[in-house]
Amino acid sequence: MQLQLALDQLDLQKAMKIIGNLQDLIDIVEIGTPMIISEGLSAVRAAKQRFPHLTVLADVKIIDGGAYESRIAFEAGADIVSVLGLAYDVTIEAAAREAKRAERSIMVDLLGVHNVVDRIAQVERMGAAYVCIHTASDLHGLDSSTLRRLKETVGAVTTAKAAVAGGIDASTIDEIVAARPAVVVVGGGIINQPDRRRAARYLKTSMQRAGEV
Amino acid sequence: MQLQLALDQLDLQKAMKIIGNLQDLIDIVEIGTPMIISEGLSAVRAAKQRFPHLTVLADVKIIDGGAYESRIAFEAGADIVSVLGLAYDVTIEAAAREAKRAERSIMVDLLGVHNVVDRIAQVERMGAAYVCIHTASDLHGLDSSTLRRLKETVGAVTTAKAAVAGGIDASTIDEIVAARPAVVVVGGGIINQPDRRRAARYLKTSMQRAGEV
Repeated sequence: MQLQLALDQLDLQKAMKIIGNLQDLIDIVEIGTPMIISEGLSAVRAAKQRFPHLTVLADVKIIDGGAYESRIAFEAGADIVSVLGLAYDVTIEAAAREAKRAERSIMVDLLGVHNVVDRIAQVERMGAAYVCIHTASDLHGLDSSTLRRLKETVGAVTTAKAAVAGGIDASTIDEIVAARPAVVVVGGGIINQPDRRRAARYLKTSMQRAGEV
Repeated sequence: MQLQLALDQLDLQKAMKIIGNLQDLIDIVEIGTPMIISEGLSAVRAAKQRFPHLTVLADVKIIDGGAYESRIAFEAGADIVSVLGLAYDVTIEAAAREAKRAERSIMVDLLGVHNVVDRIAQVERMGAAYVCIHTASDLHGLDSSTLRRLKETVGAVTTAKAAVAGGIDASTIDEIVAARPAVVVVGGGIINQPDRRRAARYLKTSMQRAGEV
């Protein structure tokens, strides 16, 4: 089980400092959509240059221009680029082709997708390496539907890894890990805590404990 | 009828040069999603600072974080920020609230929306100033369904202005203007032409001619 740290409403300098401070506790560093909007791909470039041993995800949430948008993100150093599951198949397929060419991966974000099980089967065929059950931050965090959708997702994936994002922190990590996702995405649950290393270590321990059961 | 120039796969310097060369022929300059991804909001900031008389649209295509993502785009100088019609209502409502506070506007991009007429009524109630019928670039341009959807949109709007985007150039402008949208969005139909001023002037003339009928 991998821990993905989502960096969202931060400037570049602060984000780099936070990664530096947590790099031994995290597996994937996500340059979140708000950071991409404010800083552009220079944030992805900076993260990969300074922390080459970490997997870097560019949360671009592509909905069109699948080839071009994924290509520039891979060129900037992203190991994983996100594409919306709501996008047309041609867009997801184009991004998946770029990923294959660059020997990288796409994560399909299932935000807003109604029939998760059917869409997972489709995007796996298109070449998605990851699928992500994502509760929109505007919906204010984890609820019972997230857990239901996560369980459906973990049950449905065959070749892709299941990730889960949105409202995950120390109070919800046990329910999340019980569903056995491959990747747990945490933003505010680490970033907004008074002791970030302690928060990350707590989450990591919960994940490891679940892995040993 | 307004002409919106979409700047997509360009670096900042070239984009600024193109705007400078066409500023008397266009009404709205769109910093397209690929430019936002590569350059961040600095592209929006640069466009508004250098061309304060033009309306600047940041094509952020928000699908989550409606308040924060629209706010930083407005703060960077955007007059209009795009939000996906596929987003949850809470996201569109949050972006519309920020627009109202900043005395700016949101454009709801109907890309991928199935029931256009119903969604237009909903997003108008939420405060969308513009709705955009958008043929995904990955679908390779204008087709009969675009025109049908455009006509539906123009017929459905009451308070919002109807925009149309995707695959519009000299060969298709007459069909487009016949449907009487408020905003015509053109990218490659100007940018990829050997004489950009001539292309823009041709489109503008077609739009004005339709306006006089």
